[in-house]
Amino acid sequence: MHIICKQELLINAINTVIKACSTKTTMPILECILINAHNNQVTLVGFNLELGIESTVEAEVIEEGSIALEAKIFSEIIRKMPNEMVELSTDAHQMTKIICEDCKFAISGQVGEQFPDLPQVEKHKPYTLSQHTFKEMIRQTIFSIAQEESRPILTGELLQVKGGFFRMIAFDGYRVSYRQIVLQTECEMQEVIVPGRTLNEISKILSGDETSIINLYFEDKNVLFDLGGCKVVSRLLEGEFLKYEQVFSADYGTRIEVNRQKFLMSIERAALISREGKRPIKLEIDADNMIITSKAELGNVHERIGIELEGNEISIGFNPKYLIEALRCIEDDRICLHFTSPLAPCIINPIQGEEYKYLILPVRL
Amino acid sequence: MHIICKQELLINAINTVIKACSTKTTMPILECILINAHNNQVTLVGFNLELGIESTVEAEVIEEGSIALEAKIFSEIIRKMPNEMVELSTDAHQMTKIICEDCKFAISGQVGEQFPDLPQVEKHKPYTLSQHTFKEMIRQTIFSIAQEESRPILTGELLQVKGGFFRMIAFDGYRVSYRQIVLQTECEMQEVIVPGRTLNEISKILSGDETSIINLYFEDKNVLFDLGGCKVVSRLLEGEFLKYEQVFSADYGTRIEVNRQKFLMSIERAALISREGKRPIKLEIDADNMIITSKAELGNVHERIGIELEGNEISIGFNPKYLIEALRCIEDDRICLHFTSPLAPCIINPIQGEEYKYLILPVRL
Repeated sequence: MHIICKQELLINAINTVIKACSTKTTMPILECILINAHNNQVTLVGFNLELGIESTVEAEVIEEGSIALEAKIFSEIIRKMPNEMVELSTDAHQMTKIICEDCKFAISGQVGEQFPDLPQVEKHKPYTLSQHTFKEMIRQTIFSIAQEESRPILTGELLQVKGGFFRMIAFDGYRVSYRQIVLQTECEMQEVIVPGRTLNEISKILSGDETSIINLYFEDKNVLFDLGGCKVVSRLLEGEFLKYEQVFSADYGTRIEVNRQKFLMSIERAALISREGKRPIKLEIDADNMIITSKAELGNVHERIGIELEGNEISIGFNPKYLIEALRCIEDDRICLHFTSPLAPCIINPIQGEEYKYLILPVRL
Repeated sequence: MHIICKQELLINAINTVIKACSTKTTMPILECILINAHNNQVTLVGFNLELGIESTVEAEVIEEGSIALEAKIFSEIIRKMPNEMVELSTDAHQMTKIICEDCKFAISGQVGEQFPDLPQVEKHKPYTLSQHTFKEMIRQTIFSIAQEESRPILTGELLQVKGGFFRMIAFDGYRVSYRQIVLQTECEMQEVIVPGRTLNEISKILSGDETSIINLYFEDKNVLFDLGGCKVVSRLLEGEFLKYEQVFSADYGTRIEVNRQKFLMSIERAALISREGKRPIKLEIDADNMIITSKAELGNVHERIGIELEGNEISIGFNPKYLIEALRCIEDDRICLHFTSPLAPCIINPIQGEEYKYLILPVRL
């Protein structure tokens, strides 16, 4: 293999695909980035058998071929090169020369053909979203996936296409985060469970730009995210996900409207006391006010916020972390909370519409 | 004690003095910030018995007194308060109310009188520097103090006033970093050894602004840094420091001039190979070029830079980290390196003058 490529383009592609490289593995080739030069096109690939990322780079192919280079050292070398043309060439023993102006590296690589193939996902009809929207939907739900592996299905998110909507739902056993958008085109019902790690990594690659698009292709075992110059393939999680439609009950005894920012700041302060004592915070809701309190050995806190109440007064306890994480990712100035009883979940949603729904289980006081 | 103070001023003072608070100690009061309200003036104090920081805050004193509050929780509470007036009041049992608009905290404190007194340093004739200059001098030397405590004296820096100059010198056994500036006023010879931790913390408080000044007061056991609204007192290290005048020999067989940025970039790249193999880098200097190489199991690197040579050709090995750290903190475009033999230290200094000198021991190849 012998190629010439701009340092800037090469490091961008490395930064993208390295997110899928293994760091600790019994298969050392998975710690490599595969460089593939065929048909006058160069692609870089990272793949840890669960998540694979492939990026195409504009380059001059002098001799076709492929090589797998240890990702960490390869990325460090290219990152520190001058922003000029970089020449990569391999010999018969996988020794790879990397030359840029007056600096010359030679590092040993591995046979490219030994690098495992990415799963092939057929490109039938895609779902198309703006990258910005998908990035926001991930941010607004991913904090609710389970961190521990005891129920693997909960470490992923449900991506669902149904009735003209695209939805993302995360559930860790204590809370549900739900986001939906209207799809521009009519699509048949389909759903997959995507590992949280895949969504985390893809979110770092997604552009914040409204005009960039992403195409999603669902299959039984795999999902393909096509961002144009870069493709992400991921294995899916298998199993039964929460029947989320049933948990968002329309019944409630108490509905309040509150300023999101003030509510968030108050809970963040109350959490300072609650966290030290690992105690819940208490919300007491009456006609005009919500009083937030917490007590621990080191002291206590008492916060008051004005609200608009509809329905019954209520006192209820929460782990403040769950409220804080949901409130931080909402953008509306005013939000709506629904309660039924001190032992039933609270639901946070917009004043109007169903763009997002956050369900949080209370804590017994 | 009962005071009213702007949240913004209070959190600024807390952020300053908390740098001197202990985090793990057998004397829990050292984990506190002392708040002192006397003579219509409020001061906050942090003190870990080695380093003490005192900051004066503009506040209304309604009732004089003092209280010691656990630094971490106190700072978190004030940080999360709205930017409005904060009211602090204590009762007879050291329960302290912190009130700002609709949020009310009550946390238990400790008797202020139990907080140890800062060492008193007499304010005789000070040395005056710009805060910016002092901050820069710390940055340009502190990386050369010893990290391990086996020779405590090497964990500090020598601050010396002599012959119209103010100098700072750090030495870890393998390298010396030296900075000097001309003092504006004539001062008698004096020197102290200040703990590295003190310099690190004070550097975070120093303004980058050329016009802010700092007054230094040296005593036998302590040093006082007076920044105006804030005072830093530190214990000194005792013992014999390196006789640095003797190590900067004027004799040399090789002198080169080189572009600092290019030299730094080359060594940073060469260090990628050298670090993995824990091997030195080799500099080969001839009439027009410096060739930088390193070899390890994973590969090798070869870099070329143009230089101007005066004297003999030489080949010499180094730990690249020592060169990188010195080169990173110099600002000149071109610098000068002196060598005598492959086993004698290299000295880096400006093309003209003695503003800085970096001495680095070589490694046997």
